[in-house]
Amino acid sequence: MSTHISKLKTGTPRIWTTRRDEKKRRMEKVRSMLNGVILPTDHIVDALEVLLVSGDRVALEGNNQKQASFLSQALSNVNPQVVNNLHMIMSSVSRPEHLDIFEKNIASKLDFSYAGPQSLRIAQMVEDQTLSIGSIHTYLELYGRMFVDLTPNIALVAADKADRQGNLYTGANTEETPTIIEAAAFRDGIVIVQVNEIVDELPRVDVPASWIDVIVEADQPYQLEALFTRDPRHIKETHILMGMMAIRGIYERHQVQSLNHGIGFNTAAIELLLPTYGESLGLRGKICKNWVLNPHPTLIPAIESGWVESVHCFGGEVGMEKYTAARPDVFFTGHDGTIRSNRAMGQVAGQYAADMFIGASLQIDPDGNSSTVTSGRLSGFGGAPNMGSDARGRRHDTEAWLNMITDKEPIVRGHKLVVQMVETFQSGDQPTFVDSLDAIQVGHDAGLPLAPVMIYGDDVTHVVTEEGIAYLYKAQNIEERRTALAAIAGVTPLGQRHDTDLNEKLRQDGLIAFPEDLDIRRTDAKRSLLAAKSIEELVDWSDGLYEPPSKFRSW
Amino acid sequence: MSTHISKLKTGTPRIWTTRRDEKKRRMEKVRSMLNGVILPTDHIVDALEVLLVSGDRVALEGNNQKQASFLSQALSNVNPQVVNNLHMIMSSVSRPEHLDIFEKNIASKLDFSYAGPQSLRIAQMVEDQTLSIGSIHTYLELYGRMFVDLTPNIALVAADKADRQGNLYTGANTEETPTIIEAAAFRDGIVIVQVNEIVDELPRVDVPASWIDVIVEADQPYQLEALFTRDPRHIKETHILMGMMAIRGIYERHQVQSLNHGIGFNTAAIELLLPTYGESLGLRGKICKNWVLNPHPTLIPAIESGWVESVHCFGGEVGMEKYTAARPDVFFTGHDGTIRSNRAMGQVAGQYAADMFIGASLQIDPDGNSSTVTSGRLSGFGGAPNMGSDARGRRHDTEAWLNMITDKEPIVRGHKLVVQMVETFQSGDQPTFVDSLDAIQVGHDAGLPLAPVMIYGDDVTHVVTEEGIAYLYKAQNIEERRTALAAIAGVTPLGQRHDTDLNEKLRQDGLIAFPEDLDIRRTDAKRSLLAAKSIEELVDWSDGLYEPPSKFRSW
Repeated sequence: MSTHISKLKTGTPRIWTTRRDEKKRRMEKVRSMLNGVILPTDHIVDALEVLLVSGDRVALEGNNQKQASFLSQALSNVNPQVVNNLHMIMSSVSRPEHLDIFEKNIASKLDFSYAGPQSLRIAQMVEDQTLSIGSIHTYLELYGRMFVDLTPNIALVAADKADRQGNLYTGANTEETPTIIEAAAFRDGIVIVQVNEIVDELPRVDVPASWIDVIVEADQPYQLEALFTRDPRHIKETHILMGMMAIRGIYERHQVQSLNHGIGFNTAAIELLLPTYGESLGLRGKICKNWVLNPHPTLIPAIESGWVESVHCFGGEVGMEKYTAARPDVFFTGHDGTIRSNRAMGQVAGQYAADMFIGASLQIDPDGNSSTVTSGRLSGFGGAPNMGSDARGRRHDTEAWLNMITDKEPIVRGHKLVVQMVETFQSGDQPTFVDSLDAIQVGHDAGLPLAPVMIYGDDVTHVVTEEGIAYLYKAQNIEERRTALAAIAGVTPLGQRHDTDLNEKLRQDGLIAFPEDLDIRRTDAKRSLLAAKSIEELVDWSDGLYEPPSKFRSW
Repeated sequence: MSTHISKLKTGTPRIWTTRRDEKKRRMEKVRSMLNGVILPTDHIVDALEVLLVSGDRVALEGNNQKQASFLSQALSNVNPQVVNNLHMIMSSVSRPEHLDIFEKNIASKLDFSYAGPQSLRIAQMVEDQTLSIGSIHTYLELYGRMFVDLTPNIALVAADKADRQGNLYTGANTEETPTIIEAAAFRDGIVIVQVNEIVDELPRVDVPASWIDVIVEADQPYQLEALFTRDPRHIKETHILMGMMAIRGIYERHQVQSLNHGIGFNTAAIELLLPTYGESLGLRGKICKNWVLNPHPTLIPAIESGWVESVHCFGGEVGMEKYTAARPDVFFTGHDGTIRSNRAMGQVAGQYAADMFIGASLQIDPDGNSSTVTSGRLSGFGGAPNMGSDARGRRHDTEAWLNMITDKEPIVRGHKLVVQMVETFQSGDQPTFVDSLDAIQVGHDAGLPLAPVMIYGDDVTHVVTEEGIAYLYKAQNIEERRTALAAIAGVTPLGQRHDTDLNEKLRQDGLIAFPEDLDIRRTDAKRSLLAAKSIEELVDWSDGLYEPPSKFRSW
């Protein structure tokens, strides 16, 4: 070795296997409890108390549907004298014990993406300093960081079945399980999997045993919510009117081929209008062919009528297992015939390979910034900002993407269609259009460095309300953007301040369109236009393959 | 069923298993050639002629390092009377036969990401209409589309080893293999894998047999290039000067913790300056801790000196296998001890979880747009635009990201650091700073709808040349951006038109910095500052674990 280098390489030689050694040390402690990789159900708390070390980074699988509920319950029962100060990494904070562990001092820090049902409690706990937040992420960011600076020491995840070697079948709800496991398994983290059942032979292998350390059969199946089921009974004529406008004024106009729909009655209405209103416009086979979304039951009629070429899913949906298995030309399925989802690749596809994202929001400010964070609720982001922003790294073109170009310069780029679809008032007569987002105050109270904005105004290309469509991508400056938005803000304070004399010019310039500009009569927006008006009719459409959870059955 | 629905559901019942049926039909035809999933080596062309159908979408693994060279060779030998009009999906077009298949009329359409060595020939073939381009993508876009509208009928990929069930070990070069396989396998595509070796037991399983249809032992190991090896012998004092400026004026100033480095002598210089110049600034443990990059040999001294906490790799690097296996605290490795890479998750991490992207370019225009596409070469994008753009879906914060905020508004967001590091002249005295990118003409000639810009000016936050740094993120408007850029453009025509009287103001406003503003003396930029000055010294640093390919050995 040259003296030059030996001068730089001073001190005692470093040990480069501390993570591997530590994993081995911990695994030795549970060896006597294990039969191969299998841990008896009733040993889980004991095992966690030796496999976890205070201060560990722990990735606990809380997807927005599937919950590693047995493991989260067990975690909340470890002795805080033994295990404490955990740094939790969770895409979704959904169950009470997800926060109980902070109250019990088992965990102290949280990096997360979404906290729907627990959003109020999180905000309160941050204020009380029971919990400190690392950051709030979109799903894809959180997964990315698991390979960079938030690599888990311990992964607690859920699968349907395991075989005795530890191979996993995740079935319909693969979701983010392989991603979390990969990040932990390949950096000497310990991977602990709860399964509903241990079997001799798996229908297929979703995650290989090479990546798994401990399998435990849960005392009951993992929690699974039907989050993406919308009962058509609750679709109102306003949703139908907005859906017609969106189909005519956006989907058809820009020739949207590939798309993502969020949860909500607005987009459920669109799904149910394609086989009727869409058909009458002759659009079948021309738009909405390739989808990135969960298996929405309200998409069944469009699938059955031949609108849909493909659907790639982030996760599954309770009740849709048989239907998706019977439609492999449309859904991604394994050789065993059941659906395969993948939240990480679904988010990549939704970000980069979709013409359009369309979603709803609770508040929109005059610049078009929007958020679902409202007073006292720290609800997080989920996947929306990832898909509901312009993917500036995109270089391939599609007609819809090119359609957003308004510049004439030699160097330009297209833009993703980012559509916000909202009624001007929320239930309870709260205006959707507000002068300032509650998110600013909530962010301030939670000590966040920036306000938790869901979709930034400069990413939004269209806003649809029951009044009309604002084509924000055409605005040449912020003033034009504001005016166009105000023109469709109805009788909210923002809308009332708008000078309606400007509307004629805005319509001529294509900055806004009212229903009549799109050849839509408000009186045509009837529930009779929906391809299915109830869950029961969705079941009919599916030839009985869709099996809705009992809470959606009313017949 | 209600009459309402039965009216909508007219016509003959559709068959929903056409893809699965078609796969079964094709697989039946090779059944007699197969022993389980294993196809004899000399049957590959016969097998391809029955497994492929004209017009198929075929994903052929050409990573930027690993090539499914046995399968691409076989594909170029199928009878074009039998198989033609294939639509090829390839992340990297690297080998002659990748284009031969178009000349032989076996394939007609190409979607790709990168075409380094074949870029001239592609451009010519497009002009001759031998080949039509679908689109040019970044890697992540192409993977996303494989789950949306470019799902492969056939996947031709490469792995190190398979067992007799068809489980795969991809070893150091996992790269994009699992991603391509997943897209095909779960939509009834046929997955054909060439392996270097069929063994009884694998070191670990990287892809489960459930996803694989055909395994064939290749007649020779897959092609693997050492693309990320830079010989320190070729690092010039200009690179060192620029590296010192980058470390002082960007890395330290913005506290860059997580980052990606591209290929190139500029960034190799930075890697080799961290243990010397970086150490003298007291920056170890403060910056550059978490990396997303391939196992660059030039990173060895920084790793050995304790700078690097983690490296997640897109792929492997020839010769770095033993070194990475011996450093599991830093690199992602499996329970078998060898490195695991993953190009898709690496790109996600590089896009969303890294503070900074830094790369080079061949041309930069006055607005800061840049491209590596130069006269007659359609080289594609690779992963650079994905990581070298502002990830607008990002919602988590880091110090560096927040540091890019110049607005005082209540609703703002951070920005990824996107750094271009270029000498003002390329070799052959071609100016890097040009009035107009060659990409505009090349795009026009190839019939592309947009010029193939690598990094857009409005995404770039910093440009470093041997003259100084332009802090473009601070520019309040396009004029300021142009002026700052011109100030560091040296004696290129763009630089010569710049009014140097403006420099004092630009320096005061922090829009530019010269070496002296960063306490750097040009005369200090000596090769003696490099922690290693040759490949041999890198081997020394690694305690002999790094085994460079023979072409890099000169001792």
